[in-house]
Amino acid sequence: MSSYFGKNIHVSIFGQSHSPAIGVTVDGLPVGHTINFTALDAFLQRRAPGRDATATSRQEGDKPHFLSGIVDGTTCGAPLTAIIENTNTRSHDYDTLKDLPRPAHADYTAQVKYRGFQDMAGGGHFSGRLTAPLCVAGGICLQILQKHGIEIAAHISAIGAVCDTPMNPMGESAETLNALRGASFPTLSQPVGEQMRATILEARSAGDSIGGTVECIVTGLPAGIGDPMFDGLESQLARVLFGIPAVKGVEFGAGFAVSAMKGSENNDPYTIANGAITTTTNHAGGILGGISTGMPLMFRTAFKPTPSISLPQQTVSLSAQAPAPLCVHGRHDPCIVPRAVPVVEAAAAIVLLDALMTSNSISPIT
Amino acid sequence: MSSYFGKNIHVSIFGQSHSPAIGVTVDGLPVGHTINFTALDAFLQRRAPGRDATATSRQEGDKPHFLSGIVDGTTCGAPLTAIIENTNTRSHDYDTLKDLPRPAHADYTAQVKYRGFQDMAGGGHFSGRLTAPLCVAGGICLQILQKHGIEIAAHISAIGAVCDTPMNPMGESAETLNALRGASFPTLSQPVGEQMRATILEARSAGDSIGGTVECIVTGLPAGIGDPMFDGLESQLARVLFGIPAVKGVEFGAGFAVSAMKGSENNDPYTIANGAITTTTNHAGGILGGISTGMPLMFRTAFKPTPSISLPQQTVSLSAQAPAPLCVHGRHDPCIVPRAVPVVEAAAAIVLLDALMTSNSISPIT
Amino acid sequence: MSSYFGKNIHVSIFGQSHSPAIGVTVDGLPVGHTINFTALDAFLQRRAPGRDATATSRQEGDKPHFLSGIVDGTTCGAPLTAIIENTNTRSHDYDTLKDLPRPAHADYTAQVKYRGFQDMAGGGHFSGRLTAPLCVAGGICLQILQKHGIEIAAHISAIGAVCDTPMNPMGESAETLNALRGASFPTLSQPVGEQMRATILEARSAGDSIGGTVECIVTGLPAGIGDPMFDGLESQLARVLFGIPAVKGVEFGAGFAVSAMKGSENNDPYTIANGAITTTTNHAGGILGGISTGMPLMFRTAFKPTPSISLPQQTVSLSAQAPAPLCVHGRHDPCIVPRAVPVVEAAAAIVLLDALMTSNSISPIT
Amino acid sequence: MSSYFGKNIHVSIFGQSHSPAIGVTVDGLPVGHTINFTALDAFLQRRAPGRDATATSRQEGDKPHFLSGIVDGTTCGAPLTAIIENTNTRSHDYDTLKDLPRPAHADYTAQVKYRGFQDMAGGGHFSGRLTAPLCVAGGICLQILQKHGIEIAAHISAIGAVCDTPMNPMGESAETLNALRGASFPTLSQPVGEQMRATILEARSAGDSIGGTVECIVTGLPAGIGDPMFDGLESQLARVLFGIPAVKGVEFGAGFAVSAMKGSENNDPYTIANGAITTTTNHAGGILGGISTGMPLMFRTAFKPTPSISLPQQTVSLSAQAPAPLCVHGRHDPCIVPRAVPVVEAAAAIVLLDALMTSNSISPIT
Repeated sequence: MSSYFGKNIHVSIFGQSHSPAIGVTVDGLPVGHTINFTALDAFLQRRAPGRDATATSRQEGDKPHFLSGIVDGTTCGAPLTAIIENTNTRSHDYDTLKDLPRPAHADYTAQVKYRGFQDMAGGGHFSGRLTAPLCVAGGICLQILQKHGIEIAAHISAIGAVCDTPMNPMGESAETLNALRGASFPTLSQPVGEQMRATILEARSAGDSIGGTVECIVTGLPAGIGDPMFDGLESQLARVLFGIPAVKGVEFGAGFAVSAMKGSENNDPYTIANGAITTTTNHAGGILGGISTGMPLMFRTAFKPTPSISLPQQTVSLSAQAPAPLCVHGRHDPCIVPRAVPVVEAAAAIVLLDALMTSNSISPIT
Repeated sequence: MSSYFGKNIHVSIFGQSHSPAIGVTVDGLPVGHTINFTALDAFLQRRAPGRDATATSRQEGDKPHFLSGIVDGTTCGAPLTAIIENTNTRSHDYDTLKDLPRPAHADYTAQVKYRGFQDMAGGGHFSGRLTAPLCVAGGICLQILQKHGIEIAAHISAIGAVCDTPMNPMGESAETLNALRGASFPTLSQPVGEQMRATILEARSAGDSIGGTVECIVTGLPAGIGDPMFDGLESQLARVLFGIPAVKGVEFGAGFAVSAMKGSENNDPYTIANGAITTTTNHAGGILGGISTGMPLMFRTAFKPTPSISLPQQTVSLSAQAPAPLCVHGRHDPCIVPRAVPVVEAAAAIVLLDALMTSNSISPIT
Repeated sequence: MSSYFGKNIHVSIFGQSHSPAIGVTVDGLPVGHTINFTALDAFLQRRAPGRDATATSRQEGDKPHFLSGIVDGTTCGAPLTAIIENTNTRSHDYDTLKDLPRPAHADYTAQVKYRGFQDMAGGGHFSGRLTAPLCVAGGICLQILQKHGIEIAAHISAIGAVCDTPMNPMGESAETLNALRGASFPTLSQPVGEQMRATILEARSAGDSIGGTVECIVTGLPAGIGDPMFDGLESQLARVLFGIPAVKGVEFGAGFAVSAMKGSENNDPYTIANGAITTTTNHAGGILGGISTGMPLMFRTAFKPTPSISLPQQTVSLSAQAPAPLCVHGRHDPCIVPRAVPVVEAAAAIVLLDALMTSNSISPIT
Repeated sequence: MSSYFGKNIHVSIFGQSHSPAIGVTVDGLPVGHTINFTALDAFLQRRAPGRDATATSRQEGDKPHFLSGIVDGTTCGAPLTAIIENTNTRSHDYDTLKDLPRPAHADYTAQVKYRGFQDMAGGGHFSGRLTAPLCVAGGICLQILQKHGIEIAAHISAIGAVCDTPMNPMGESAETLNALRGASFPTLSQPVGEQMRATILEARSAGDSIGGTVECIVTGLPAGIGDPMFDGLESQLARVLFGIPAVKGVEFGAGFAVSAMKGSENNDPYTIANGAITTTTNHAGGILGGISTGMPLMFRTAFKPTPSISLPQQTVSLSAQAPAPLCVHGRHDPCIVPRAVPVVEAAAAIVLLDALMTSNSISPIT
């Protein structure tokens, strides 16, 4: 089990869906940053359930309590730990699930790996609820980045077959980014957003669920950040993004479309604009050789449909070693994508702050 | 700079395109494995240039010399280091490039990060040539996996708009996997392979290049391997795959297509087949919650077109801070995808052997 | 800041002396271990203040609350997090100290590193109080080791000039080890213990403090555990032991005395005893080449005298940039060594369990 | 096996005593440093055998060949790899040793861990020869530190019962440090050096060997470098120092002597000298809370006597499982301490450069 990552900003996530609390420790944050708790709460609320009509009606108290790492609200150099208490009583409904693994959940794989000792309740450590502490860490990192002129914003680029206007790889205005971060259902096109909502509600009515894609842009990132090979920005971002439950694909810039492109199309020509070196297109998504180009960093993340659906499903009884029907009860998001938007932003914020704190020059010495 | 990765199998890559040698150190290999050097050479030849008519005619001596880690050809527990000598004389042609960064290469980002001290010759540490030592490490890991019944094979699933038959997510026969690994241009459909070749040669004739996609399957991997969150199989594989130059997208199982799927479609139902728990579909690509399901592990990796093209391009002169035309000379692969196939397999082999050596139980104690 | 360590057992410590709570996350514990909470509490009580007449009379509630990682008291594979609430109200007495750094504390070094943002209250993250969560982690690891026949016990081997009988490097009986772990002031010789107590009380009466040494033995550790070079048992143990506040020296086996020994004296001859390979002396302290020999593992750790003393001291006013007198008030342990004994055992338990879970063979695959 | 360490400066050692080559990869060196190869060779010569009459007469070609990481002798940001070829032909003399483990060597522990697959020749990966590549890495790091006014020098502080004048913890002059680094047998007192030499030659005549201690000082290190807890300077230095073969003890500042000190003696009072904050004594050895105080950093490292002696010894035959006499032949250093001096300096240089490149502030961002 390795629920941690990062080099300079070391993030460690803990908790299970029904354990007394979930939380995060962030070791290595820049000192002297005064956390804007109002802004942080607003950020966390974007992930919280019940914000949009399309989401689950469950209420979670996603209020972080800070145990360490701050003095009077300012980072002090010690590891910052925040916890979110779980108010859900542990139910024994999950005992059944231990025998009947739910398709597309981690029930079966956890059973094999942990030999029955895993926490089944609410998905245990595999629950999407663990993205709440990730958002606490990411929300703080985002505030620090913003102080340095770096903005991160994402939108729902697809739900089922409904696709939003793609973000402009050459950049989006601060107003657009702010509007997306303020929206309960962030899309660039409002009518498309309505269609997406309808698609989600349709899936819910059918006792089904639906997948989607989140597209994210980072503006203001200077050139020269990152590393080659396995610590490249793509490698580090992908590692964390695939750590978010339900993610099955990650692509940068033109992404999978590069497969059908010619070099003469894909290569981004350099030019000088306002005294700065820039490119006239941005198929690279702001990254070459793992290092930032100074152009907007762009990526897309694909989320599978929520595994928990009301429709009857087929599974096996582990005890009987025989096929068995399965009915999953409870309130579940028919689509997790809207709530995943800030999670994607959080993951990006942590990875980029970490990269920004890495230096290959001797300057930190002097 | 962080050209290393891995926990139990720690792989560290070194070298530049025109440095005296490139190489790899693998720390943590299981002891007592006798390397099949003939098989390893065959594996490396698949990455070497000049094997297929579509590839560059440059000749590289990709013969590894083993400096340490083996006794009489058998792993001895000490870190294994292999080097491949570079026979290319360092040319000073690259001095020009230092002033005129090539589009879609890492020239400009390296210049910003390393302030002019980077090795420009042949792309330096960013060169695709660095995938040769990765293949040495991966080729050895693959042999160890094969001893345990785990097979890895990949094919060219797309070149430009030409797509090969997709692999069967329920598994491919050993014969098919062997045939792919023996082919100089591995596709499932031979006619499609011919079309792909034609597409590549067409790009070359036009002084252009073309992108593509590699699809990879792993069979025989037992259930229960991997970890949740950031050490999940998807996270670890993606980290290494995005460390391969030119990769812009990675997806597992149904991948980006999950975005348009309903839960009732995407969820893989469990069943019992021949006394074993299995699923009747495999949209998960063999991974749930970061842990293997026992079904074939499947993923696709998108490669951008070779940045080096003969067609005239637009760049800037860093010294003049003004736009400047660019002509890239030399022999370059019009498409790197065929040679990337074993690199993808190598990356998977290392990550999976590492995961297989991780234990969360107390058994290693006894 | 890097308050974490470990490879398979990844331990991350958080908290400051006066933050809402301190705690620890342990990622990678073997699953299925049922924690004996009574034994764990007893272990923690050995570190708690106020247990012996020589210790501070402060009362700390060292009761851990488990937030995650267990189901019905049994490790479940998810990261285990335990916190201990701090009941001390943050006082502003420490504002003075920010200007007047206390000799031998980390006040000044923290001030330089964290530029005034550090938490001064009670020593902040540098407080000895942070060893409480280390003991929670170590106490659990110790229970797991004990299940496999591995015992760890330490004694106070020196306080000032008073030295206890050295442990027998060939091993101590289970009874002796149990007695040491049950004692409030663990020494092998009871009269020596009384002398040590007198020495501590004498220091207290004088408004002073006194240093000491802890000697630790590990029995039942099989041969072949550990790694060469920088992951050797000595390297890993020393790293964690020097992470305990006030430690200034660590030595294994004969330790610094090897400096004056001849090879013919120091070399431990091999022999066969009861069908097992053993050595007739144990100057190696159970470790050769970083790997366990199967003989008892032995080491000593030197602790400096408590920096906080009532005697007047000399410091500087950082604001005035001028010398200034200092009087440190409050209740302080005149000697931390008795309370450090279980901390040393805890550190050893974590490192050894980690080493025991590392494998260089392919066995975990099968 | 984990022959690597470091966070920003990642050092990976490879090779066996009789493998084709040994070497080191250093990932993360500051870019733009032009290596002074003459100075580096001089540094390496201090470790090479045959320099002093007391050392082994074996000749080793400790000439490093640089495979990567430099362009025209200047670090370029890519991982630097240097190898040293082994000219020793692999002898089969070591086959005997496989059955008859040499006391105080790693023969037996390696046999248990690697189940007979380990490289026995010349001690394999456990050989002291592996300190040569450590010196290559450390020698380069030292040059970078020197550019920033940081000097490291060590002397032989004890051989057997003969002790050199201790270094002045308040600092030693640049002339003294230079003299030590230029000496073939570095001691502060020349007569003591002669006595030590006599002691070593006496041990050799008796077919025996002798241990010793190295004391090291670092001057010019600014305050505020390092981290609390497990990444403290003491933790990181100790980890690497104990990775040097034969080291059995490490202590900082007053070291084990703190055990017998009172707080009023050990606490270093602060004062102002020439406008700078300093302490009037330096029992802390320049480190408080894991972070540098700005005073000289001081530590001592104890080396056991060379295990290989000509005197007859007692071991066991692993095949016969019975006691057996052992005679070790060949040329061996009767005392490794003189050659270990630069190794200690190298270890310190790497750890300190790594610490100097770590930042907890946001400055690298801007």
